[in-house]
Amino acid sequence: MVDITHKSFTLRIATAQAVVQVSRSETIEAIVQRRVPKGDVFEMAKAAGLLAVKKTPDLLPDCHPIPIEYTAVAYQIEEESLRIVIEMTVKTIYKTGVEVEAMHGASVVALTMYDMLKPIDKGVEIQTIRLLEKKGGKSDRQVHLP
Amino acid sequence: MVDITHKSFTLRIATAQAVVQVSRSETIEAIVQRRVPKGDVFEMAKAAGLLAVKKTPDLLPDCHPIPIEYTAVAYQIEEESLRIVIEMTVKTIYKTGVEVEAMHGASVVALTMYDMLKPIDKGVEIQTIRLLEKKGGKSDRQVHLP
Amino acid sequence: MVDITHKSFTLRIATAQAVVQVSRSETIEAIVQRRVPKGDVFEMAKAAGLLAVKKTPDLLPDCHPIPIEYTAVAYQIEEESLRIVIEMTVKTIYKTGVEVEAMHGASVVALTMYDMLKPIDKGVEIQTIRLLEKKGGKSDRQVHLP
Amino acid sequence: MVDITHKSFTLRIATAQAVVQVSRSETIEAIVQRRVPKGDVFEMAKAAGLLAVKKTPDLLPDCHPIPIEYTAVAYQIEEESLRIVIEMTVKTIYKTGVEVEAMHGASVVALTMYDMLKPIDKGVEIQTIRLLEKKGGKSDRQVHLP
Amino acid sequence: MVDITHKSFTLRIATAQAVVQVSRSETIEAIVQRRVPKGDVFEMAKAAGLLAVKKTPDLLPDCHPIPIEYTAVAYQIEEESLRIVIEMTVKTIYKTGVEVEAMHGASVVALTMYDMLKPIDKGVEIQTIRLLEKKGGKSDRQVHLP
Amino acid sequence: MVDITHKSFTLRIATAQAVVQVSRSETIEAIVQRRVPKGDVFEMAKAAGLLAVKKTPDLLPDCHPIPIEYTAVAYQIEEESLRIVIEMTVKTIYKTGVEVEAMHGASVVALTMYDMLKPIDKGVEIQTIRLLEKKGGKSDRQVHLP
Repeated sequence: MVDITHKSFTLRIATAQAVVQVSRSETIEAIVQRRVPKGDVFEMAKAAGLLAVKKTPDLLPDCHPIPIEYTAVAYQIEEESLRIVIEMTVKTIYKTGVEVEAMHGASVVALTMYDMLKPIDKGVEIQTIRLLEKKGGKSDRQVHLP
Repeated sequence: MVDITHKSFTLRIATAQAVVQVSRSETIEAIVQRRVPKGDVFEMAKAAGLLAVKKTPDLLPDCHPIPIEYTAVAYQIEEESLRIVIEMTVKTIYKTGVEVEAMHGASVVALTMYDMLKPIDKGVEIQTIRLLEKKGGKSDRQVHLP
Repeated sequence: MVDITHKSFTLRIATAQAVVQVSRSETIEAIVQRRVPKGDVFEMAKAAGLLAVKKTPDLLPDCHPIPIEYTAVAYQIEEESLRIVIEMTVKTIYKTGVEVEAMHGASVVALTMYDMLKPIDKGVEIQTIRLLEKKGGKSDRQVHLP
Repeated sequence: MVDITHKSFTLRIATAQAVVQVSRSETIEAIVQRRVPKGDVFEMAKAAGLLAVKKTPDLLPDCHPIPIEYTAVAYQIEEESLRIVIEMTVKTIYKTGVEVEAMHGASVVALTMYDMLKPIDKGVEIQTIRLLEKKGGKSDRQVHLP
Repeated sequence: MVDITHKSFTLRIATAQAVVQVSRSETIEAIVQRRVPKGDVFEMAKAAGLLAVKKTPDLLPDCHPIPIEYTAVAYQIEEESLRIVIEMTVKTIYKTGVEVEAMHGASVVALTMYDMLKPIDKGVEIQTIRLLEKKGGKSDRQVHLP
Repeated sequence: MVDITHKSFTLRIATAQAVVQVSRSETIEAIVQRRVPKGDVFEMAKAAGLLAVKKTPDLLPDCHPIPIEYTAVAYQIEEESLRIVIEMTVKTIYKTGVEVEAMHGASVVALTMYDMLKPIDKGVEIQTIRLLEKKGGKSDRQVHLP
């Protein structure tokens, strides 16, 4: 684990993306109309994702425990390509960034959607989990902690 | 999850209460005399409660991970009404309060008591989990962090 | 921990209840109309509750790990008394019952609702966590496991 | 959560794939020659993945806890395309399948690799997490449990 | 992880030992008389140990999740040598043994004692964590599961 | 749990030791040559140990959650005595020390080695888990936090 004892506290923001590809337009309709038998896919996957962001250091050996100060999930439906784009944003004021936390959160949102959609669509796949944006750290101004 | 990046560190104290109602005075005697087969109910439930306070952000999606700096459990026996009153106090110096942490801790103390008493009393119930007191935050003086 | 090595597998069903008391009818409206800022209260609390049922042996020292085979949450709104009644049902085919699992799940559903409603209603309380019904075990027919 | 109390025990096998795309051939060399500063990437990511498979029901609300009876990770290096293909296989004899467990395990292997490679390669991405193969269940013979 | 899909269910029992060495007889007196400030050492360490046995597959990558069916802790005080001997017994009817679970539980009992005694005795050490006894498995009769 | 709200932030470093005793020189050869069937023992045990350090407050009731800022594992092979000495170092800048975290991490490294070596050496034992060194705290200079 990287030694961060000497680093300074700065505001860190990371946004990660995960893409869920479904195989039929009926799947997207069922999500939007809240007719998926296991429940409201967007809300339940959000709950799972918020919890997962906080569990990142429990799963990834080298991740520091970080005081997560904000987490949010946004969904975008691309009807033509049958894709749902998940954006997970995480913020902290700490000595190290939150990009892996955002990526882990996005991946669990996607996996929860996969798990909830499985009974109604056998062709769901998760495509691309990647960092979209990252602020703070070396190349950024230092925040004054109380 | 509420964005707390801009908030300041203050001392936060919360005390929550949970009430365990038993059905027979023999149950209370067995607890006090440490004769419950599963072990010392007050001590084991305290251990479970201390751990539970720290696990709150693992269970409740919107709870921020908080540097818990103090946790204590107190028990009060109301012999006449066959009630045991649990008080869980939690402290931190952080940007958000610990009331849900105290309530979650109190609920797990109560559930552990229920689970340990089940073999000797089939009529145990948990009554009222609520916040008793809360200090710090908006309406309170700011603490100077090192 | 009670020794269950000699016990036989039977179908076990438990339903537990938790009651959330709010202080204003506007709170119930906000839940029903999905206008609570933190998200859809019923759906997110359900997700937290399903996860919590499975984490029961992680929090309560004497609980056996149990192959949870079904979990469901139902909500009933009592508008006049400003109460929301949570019913958590859990099933397993195993050597010991799931009543504490159902009670723990119900308590976490209630706590998640408390946490999500806190910003819009300061007077929320959790009232009564208790077992409603329990099937299987000693007094019940034995199920033939494969 | 789907009710599986009535289902029968069969051997279930699932293999899921995750693809890690790196941006330079030097990254792959560093992995193979065990020169990545954070440690042996393949071995540490395997350890994280084995643990993650078992934690799936802790993260995904509707997943049943499953007696995982086998887990293995295989890596394939595609030098030309700078891709590392992860294959995670999971087995159980139980009433429901292990495909989400395999996908979750594969995703955590990929995220651990991302986290370990971040200091030496800023262009790592996770591409495609999908089910490769699945045996057992409805369309399969029943296994005789003891 | 070893593939156990083909193995049969037998009764497995394991007992592991951990030894806590204290540096003064006053420490042992404080434990026995329940005067240690952090609480009743034997009871709280037992609660931590019962929970830890169940968390073994969460911490050790290759351990199978096992339906733990019995766990117990026994303490023996050796006053002359200032040692406390912990014995942790675990039982299951499953396809693989519980020796690592018993050893992990014993180690957490010992660590909890260390942590609780630290404020009153700076010379505490944990000596020997080892398997005392193991029954079931290859060399043993098969148990008929229901 | 000790109240640390009034304490100041200082750099804390702790190193703990655990000793794994094997019964045959072939076991050490298999580790060094990476021929142990379950995988690279040193690397997988390191991954488990890094995760375990972070999970200490999850297992020990009185341990405060601590922002772990550095964790490292070192192995020393003593060929003549057939012993492997594990050294786990942990750092934080916080109000309380990390010695129990280091000891818990070292114990899980040792237990993972035991679990991985079990199939090839039936005589493995864990000997001595103890604190080697500790810096920071009362007797030490205060670090200026941002």
